[in-house]
Amino acid sequence: MRVRKRKGAEEHLANHPQYVILEPEAAKGKWHQIFGNDNPIHIEVGSGKGAFITGMAQQNPDINYIGIDIQLSVLSYALDKVLASGVENVKLLRVDGSALTNYFEDGEVDMMYLNFSDPWPKSRHEKRRLTYKTFLDTYKQILPKNGEIHLKTDNRGFFEYSLTSFSQYGMILNKVWLDLHASDYEGNVMTEYERKFSEKGQAIYRVEAQFKD
Amino acid sequence: MRVRKRKGAEEHLANHPQYVILEPEAAKGKWHQIFGNDNPIHIEVGSGKGAFITGMAQQNPDINYIGIDIQLSVLSYALDKVLASGVENVKLLRVDGSALTNYFEDGEVDMMYLNFSDPWPKSRHEKRRLTYKTFLDTYKQILPKNGEIHLKTDNRGFFEYSLTSFSQYGMILNKVWLDLHASDYEGNVMTEYERKFSEKGQAIYRVEAQFKD
Ligand SMILES: C[S@@+](CC[C@H](N)C(=O)[O-])C[C@H]1O[C@@H](n2cnc3c(N)ncnc32)[C@H](O)[C@@H]1O
Ligand SMILES: C[S@@+](CC[C@H](N)C(=O)[O-])C[C@H]1O[C@@H](n2cnc3c(N)ncnc32)[C@H](O)[C@@H]1O
Repeated sequence: MRVRKRKGAEEHLANHPQYVILEPEAAKGKWHQIFGNDNPIHIEVGSGKGAFITGMAQQNPDINYIGIDIQLSVLSYALDKVLASGVENVKLLRVDGSALTNYFEDGEVDMMYLNFSDPWPKSRHEKRRLTYKTFLDTYKQILPKNGEIHLKTDNRGFFEYSLTSFSQYGMILNKVWLDLHASDYEGNVMTEYERKFSEKGQAIYRVEAQFKD
Repeated sequence: MRVRKRKGAEEHLANHPQYVILEPEAAKGKWHQIFGNDNPIHIEVGSGKGAFITGMAQQNPDINYIGIDIQLSVLSYALDKVLASGVENVKLLRVDGSALTNYFEDGEVDMMYLNFSDPWPKSRHEKRRLTYKTFLDTYKQILPKNGEIHLKTDNRGFFEYSLTSFSQYGMILNKVWLDLHASDYEGNVMTEYERKFSEKGQAIYRVEAQFKD
């Protein structure tokens, strides 16, 4: 997904250092200090316009959330949502999901979310998919032993790929939903993409996968 | 699935000992002898009326197939298909899938299929599902190291369950299809249930899972 450049996005982000981490490298190993508490830290990679991370933060005030996106304009819209909601347990980080070990110490992240990641359907783009094995290496390092990834998507090919990529990496699939909105799953927080695609009648897929040893 | 009792089914089966194995215990360890060759042996557990096993046997004359079903009447309809098709590489076995180690030596089966197994949706019936862990114990024993199970179903709950059951057992999911008939999968042989449900517009799920160590 490419979002149109938003005028003043960079300044907007720079003006809110209490929410936007402006020097990501300096944050490595210091996230509990930054949040000012010892609550668990959950991250979303590719957080887009922030409806999920903001909604989760409201639902779970005792968890610290970090929304991570590579696009400046997108992140600035997420900042709007964070400001409007008044949540204090969210930070935003503009970095690349492939380089998370630069910003998080080993095991510093308690769990992570991937929502409606770009599917990169062509096989020559497999390495760009956020569930490709090199990304899993990165996630495994910053998560605790037996750390979990919770993933949602509407994209059939990307979901098929992610299930097998997780499994072939040695991860365990603890739970799978092939039509989340028709299930008895409670407390679901919708993302922007989820709202859009489910309104079109598309099934939403979800999986909870866990690293082993 | 319960099929109405067919009159004369037992006699019909007894009249065709070249296709129907009448003394299953005696066959253990002797399947290559029974088929009269050293070709790989593939089994389908819950083979129903036999469209799949017969179609596969026609498609792959160098593989030996065994259709296994617990219901006498159902197996007698499968026999009709085998007779009509003239294939020589199919045998039929009326036994319970939970007791396969009584009829197959360790590693005697090269791979296996589960198609449209009864879903047993209530959680108190979990143990009856053909992908429950006690069934996986049995399959693992009669398959070779790294043996594979290929499963198809239209049932969402059963597919969700089977993916996690395989994964939690330590099996690897090598490939997953969430809409088989919309994919580029070639050479698919339809089962009776598959024809019925796909005609109603339902997606067909498929997975190739593999035992490890
Ligand atoms: C399709 S959008 C989904 C946004 C949101 N999760 C939702 O469900 O509405 C994917 C997002 O992932 C971001 N993204 C893609 N690749 C990324 C990467 N390597 N690191 C961080 N973010 C990335 C994009 O900028 C985009 O905002
Ligand atoms: C829903 S039907 C599907 C038949 C066929 N595979 C198809 O796709 O058309 C399930 C079949 O599994 C058989 N079955 C159920 N439990 C079984 C067991 N424990 N062992 C062997 N067969 C079983 C039933 O008798 C029935 O014929």
